[in-house]
Amino acid sequence: MGAPRLLVASNRGPVSYGWDDAGRLVERRGGGGLVSALSGHPARWLCAALSDADRAASRAGLLPDDVQMLEHDPVTFDRAYNRVANGALWFVAHLLHDLSRTPSFDSRSRREWTAYTAYDEVFAEALARQAAPGARVLVQDYHLCLTPRQLRELRPDLRIGHFTHTPWAPPEVFRVLPDEVVRDLLTGLLGADAVGFHSGRWAEAFIRCCTLLLGAQPVDGGVSYEGRVTRVGVHPLGVDRTELRARAAQPDVVGRRAGVQALVGDRQLLLRIDRTELSKNIVRGLHAYRELLRTWPEHRGRVVHLAFAYPSRHDLPEYREYTAAVQRVAREVNEEFATADWLPVHLEVADDYPRSLAAYALADVLIVNPVRDGMNLVAKEGPVLSPDGVVLVLSREAGAADELDGDALLVNPYDLGQTAAALHQALLMPYAERRARCDRLADAASALPPAAWLAAQLAALD
Amino acid sequence: MGAPRLLVASNRGPVSYGWDDAGRLVERRGGGGLVSALSGHPARWLCAALSDADRAASRAGLLPDDVQMLEHDPVTFDRAYNRVANGALWFVAHLLHDLSRTPSFDSRSRREWTAYTAYDEVFAEALARQAAPGARVLVQDYHLCLTPRQLRELRPDLRIGHFTHTPWAPPEVFRVLPDEVVRDLLTGLLGADAVGFHSGRWAEAFIRCCTLLLGAQPVDGGVSYEGRVTRVGVHPLGVDRTELRARAAQPDVVGRRAGVQALVGDRQLLLRIDRTELSKNIVRGLHAYRELLRTWPEHRGRVVHLAFAYPSRHDLPEYREYTAAVQRVAREVNEEFATADWLPVHLEVADDYPRSLAAYALADVLIVNPVRDGMNLVAKEGPVLSPDGVVLVLSREAGAADELDGDALLVNPYDLGQTAAALHQALLMPYAERRARCDRLADAASALPPAAWLAAQLAALD
Repeated sequence: MGAPRLLVASNRGPVSYGWDDAGRLVERRGGGGLVSALSGHPARWLCAALSDADRAASRAGLLPDDVQMLEHDPVTFDRAYNRVANGALWFVAHLLHDLSRTPSFDSRSRREWTAYTAYDEVFAEALARQAAPGARVLVQDYHLCLTPRQLRELRPDLRIGHFTHTPWAPPEVFRVLPDEVVRDLLTGLLGADAVGFHSGRWAEAFIRCCTLLLGAQPVDGGVSYEGRVTRVGVHPLGVDRTELRARAAQPDVVGRRAGVQALVGDRQLLLRIDRTELSKNIVRGLHAYRELLRTWPEHRGRVVHLAFAYPSRHDLPEYREYTAAVQRVAREVNEEFATADWLPVHLEVADDYPRSLAAYALADVLIVNPVRDGMNLVAKEGPVLSPDGVVLVLSREAGAADELDGDALLVNPYDLGQTAAALHQALLMPYAERRARCDRLADAASALPPAAWLAAQLAALD
Repeated sequence: MGAPRLLVASNRGPVSYGWDDAGRLVERRGGGGLVSALSGHPARWLCAALSDADRAASRAGLLPDDVQMLEHDPVTFDRAYNRVANGALWFVAHLLHDLSRTPSFDSRSRREWTAYTAYDEVFAEALARQAAPGARVLVQDYHLCLTPRQLRELRPDLRIGHFTHTPWAPPEVFRVLPDEVVRDLLTGLLGADAVGFHSGRWAEAFIRCCTLLLGAQPVDGGVSYEGRVTRVGVHPLGVDRTELRARAAQPDVVGRRAGVQALVGDRQLLLRIDRTELSKNIVRGLHAYRELLRTWPEHRGRVVHLAFAYPSRHDLPEYREYTAAVQRVAREVNEEFATADWLPVHLEVADDYPRSLAAYALADVLIVNPVRDGMNLVAKEGPVLSPDGVVLVLSREAGAADELDGDALLVNPYDLGQTAAALHQALLMPYAERRARCDRLADAASALPPAAWLAAQLAALD
């Protein structure tokens, strides 16, 4: 195998490793659009070793030929990944800071920023060493915003793309970050030939940041800075309908159906599936469900709310508190409305993807109400996997709202009354309307499946 | 006196009342740019009765001829003033919500919004009853956003202006509010012939909200909506240098000088003056001072930080917690650095305007570091009252930064390291540079004194 002509760089790779009870390394294949999109493309994938097992597998030569894991010392990793990427950058992108209190930047955050810079540089150097002349490189997401510029300085012959999977903050919020961080992030991305976002709203916010905070010039289709033009594209990732349906027909999914059905009985199923992530707005979703049961008592005893809220980032205290709040509100709703034979909310905190796929097929209403979300694939998977026409209640602040507007019931995620009214409308919607809306939602959700999404990014580099 | 040809409407009026120890009603004259601006103009001022004493004075006919206080029932007042205006609208304008938790809108918030609407309508009806044909009406601030449109419907002959003293939120944050609230606020203001802001940034954000959330059209100098054009103006309120210096020469100010001087001794004085308001960023200011003392030990024992942080909105728990946090951090800094003859921070929570004026004249450095502020007049008063050239360390997020950029040391209010470095630079600045910068700051601060500011608003109505 010669030097690769297509390379992908991302924090999390297509495989990860763990140890089984006997102490043997076990490989886990990741899902996600990029894995699916790359099947059939000869590409080298560079990712970070995220665990001791990853490092052991990498050193033992167990990785697939097309995957390479980069090692970082634990202090650098913690600062770059936990503090900068998942702390500062995720919070800024999703408007999650409580600005009268957080963030604050001091000498510690400057060390963290140095670590993030070094982390991205490790990727840039590995890419620069390996890429064939003129190769195409696709850098992924907010962990690696500096890599495009770093790589261009090492290898100006390459064609470099970057894709951001999160939202982008308006300049008023983006410039909360220290001046040098703002400058490095924007110039880092503008080191790419093309950058991509899931929504035109995020692309526009990025262009406004470049214009107002960096003095770059908006030009047709992109941004001009220091004599170079970076194309700015909108590529809303969708699902591969055929692949997803085939996955949902696997025995592990089929085998979980009866268990989900038993929880629901002959009632209507209101479903939600999220990580317990601050942006996912699970607490307000439960409050809206309570408002529904208070305002329209005819739904009492006739609907079950199944909330799969699997754990996320439990090393951060904000996330532990948030999970506790979710559990508390679910308990309160049950205390207020439960009867001898009806539990209004089933909150499940285990991560069980096959069970989620099984639940999609049974749902009458799917609620996806993030305060802000780069895309949200749950909103797209649900309609594709629904045989009976699920009704989608969707936050307008999700990137997916761009494509699903019109057939989803869009809500302001802060408005419990509006959300409750949408749930009421959804639960009462006649079958024919549900069916017709869901068919159109499924079409829109699969308009740009992973392979086409990847092709669009590659085309932007040519 | 005939029907007035100029009317002003604001929540807080130019006078308020209390009872003295003998149970007699005592009038207090308010300060503020508008009071100063209107002296010499024959105008009728409509405001709210904010206390039992106000109501008693109003009913007893003790008010000045040109002032009328409108009464609201206590429930309506609490909902409109505390919940909507100072809760939701203030928080949105200053980006103070912790969006993963607050706000949430439910049936209670809809009752509150109805109260706000009724509150504004009381003003509109009173104005409509009293105004002479073709009169000019100046409506003030975020408490009265609906009044312009309500008034126009009653009296299309009037020329109506509105001025917003807070920042304006970008559309991504403004649309956190319920759909009908967004629509009512924007169409309410667009009921005016001209609206004004302290900063071009707030005006631009308002125009973007009208365009993106209401479908209005930006036009040269304003916004077009439903066939009418509302002018959008930027009128950055300044201070009246002559009047302010005369006030600072009064005996109550002069008499407080020795007391302030005694706290400072022969050390340098770092001063701040704020309400204990979440947006004022007092906690980070104290952290930055701590960072200064840690990083540049040469300032230890040679500077005193006098922080006048007078109480504000103590009926809201967030504000009580914030005040407690300010007190805690001040104590921590003193515990870390105090010596037998040096207390690094003097935190004073009493509201004593003459003492503040006395302190301005003694300050070497003035820190004004809000996370967001419509204007901030402290940043303008300080240079005007400084005989020896105070150095201004100013947040770029204050409206005042537009005019004071270049001679103030601008900082990112979230960046403690940058703020500490600016304090260091300020404390070391040579006299000639301080003097020259301060003179230019004083000029800029008094470029649009209240009378000219009022004239600009009136001119926009013609």
